[in-house]
Amino acid sequence: MEGEPEVNVFKHEEDFVSFLKSSIAREMAIVVLGLCSVDYRGRAQSRLGEGIHVVLVKSDGAVLVHGPEGYEPINYQPKTTSLTVFRDGEKIVLRAVRTRPYEELKIIFTKIYSAIAFKTHFRPEFIMYGREEDLRRAVVRNPALVEEGLRVVEIERKVRPGFIDLLCVDKEGKLVVIEFKREEAGISAVRQLYEYVKALSSELGRPVRGILAAPRISRDARSLLTTLGLEYRRLDLRKCMRYMTITGLEKFIRK
Amino acid sequence: MEGEPEVNVFKHEEDFVSFLKSSIAREMAIVVLGLCSVDYRGRAQSRLGEGIHVVLVKSDGAVLVHGPEGYEPINYQPKTTSLTVFRDGEKIVLRAVRTRPYEELKIIFTKIYSAIAFKTHFRPEFIMYGREEDLRRAVVRNPALVEEGLRVVEIERKVRPGFIDLLCVDKEGKLVVIEFKREEAGISAVRQLYEYVKALSSELGRPVRGILAAPRISRDARSLLTTLGLEYRRLDLRKCMRYMTITGLEKFIRK
Repeated sequence: MEGEPEVNVFKHEEDFVSFLKSSIAREMAIVVLGLCSVDYRGRAQSRLGEGIHVVLVKSDGAVLVHGPEGYEPINYQPKTTSLTVFRDGEKIVLRAVRTRPYEELKIIFTKIYSAIAFKTHFRPEFIMYGREEDLRRAVVRNPALVEEGLRVVEIERKVRPGFIDLLCVDKEGKLVVIEFKREEAGISAVRQLYEYVKALSSELGRPVRGILAAPRISRDARSLLTTLGLEYRRLDLRKCMRYMTITGLEKFIRK
Repeated sequence: MEGEPEVNVFKHEEDFVSFLKSSIAREMAIVVLGLCSVDYRGRAQSRLGEGIHVVLVKSDGAVLVHGPEGYEPINYQPKTTSLTVFRDGEKIVLRAVRTRPYEELKIIFTKIYSAIAFKTHFRPEFIMYGREEDLRRAVVRNPALVEEGLRVVEIERKVRPGFIDLLCVDKEGKLVVIEFKREEAGISAVRQLYEYVKALSSELGRPVRGILAAPRISRDARSLLTTLGLEYRRLDLRKCMRYMTITGLEKFIRK
């Protein structure tokens, strides 16, 4: 690992307010196990009664409240505009406010069992050993991984030069050919996509968009792509993985 | 809070293997801040390189790996069939296996900064102060909150006795009238739904399903509901809340 990580463990003799404040000021991620209740107000209002919860406050302001069961958080706020901490009698309040749309999450702690803050500049690499077919499967389940509003039309459509990975329709009704690469896309991927787009467009007699979907693209490939009027969308492999493993959605794909 | 919670803080002089094993054996939820890498194999394979991660192992076997940023976990497994812990040289491995479908998540720890396990039988109450309109809005965004395969047809359709909260079509093409209650649904809610179903069914000359969607239903109401051939679906308020606050979906509703 490059660079030394910073880790601050909360000692019970410390003041929890100062611990939170200094950790937030230094943009550290914070993990608290505490007895707390949660008030939310935004589009609606809710209150989570007092219980033992794991509170995660990330360095980018994302806040999650987890209970002892289930993989989904009980409460969460993906983005926070401001985080404030204050004392309210015996209680300590962490207030996460998001301004657009207005949402306020108030976590009211009455007891802290453990708290720790950490910061690291190192971002571990995530490698997926899937096949292109797996990426396509993920996108079939959730086309928004490539573009909002896409609908899947056909898988492996035969055109003159070969098989199109995925054929979709965008939200404006235009046909979109998608070519997947599971690693860095190079010149040959761009050529391949261009062949498919050209073939399909002439077969149907109407314009067709071409998207190269891959985790990375080489500089040469990117430049050729632009020249040919094609598009690149970065595939987030972590997100794709999630759609490969969510099996409850399996039935939808077959439709 | 009823009953005393159990909380075990990991002391560095302890053996991390025994700490994990005993916490798992007692079905405690575990929070670890550690330096670890993650291997996944299932439908695809992935490897998350070594970094500081927050690992949550819930009492029901759900496993989450969170990084310092973002509200989404980097890796997760919603359900686990078996959790095993073993030493591999200097490293400590937590292996979470799910059998159907086969998925294996291996978390390989090389350093532990903090670990804590907790157990509580108390389940805090979650109260939502939303309006029925908010529940409806959540269901419009995600009709699966009421039933898989529902499609929204009309909001507040006027029938003779009043306004139908939500009119949908189920996956077999049948019309479904949905009536929302934000608290316990009573006899009057059932009567109201029945009036709507009767009116719409006679207006259109075809059978219509009626669903009462509420967090709870009284015993009397449930019995009347069955008699009248209507259905009840428990609305999970926490899940609804999430759909009320996901604003990226806003544009879809207006379609």
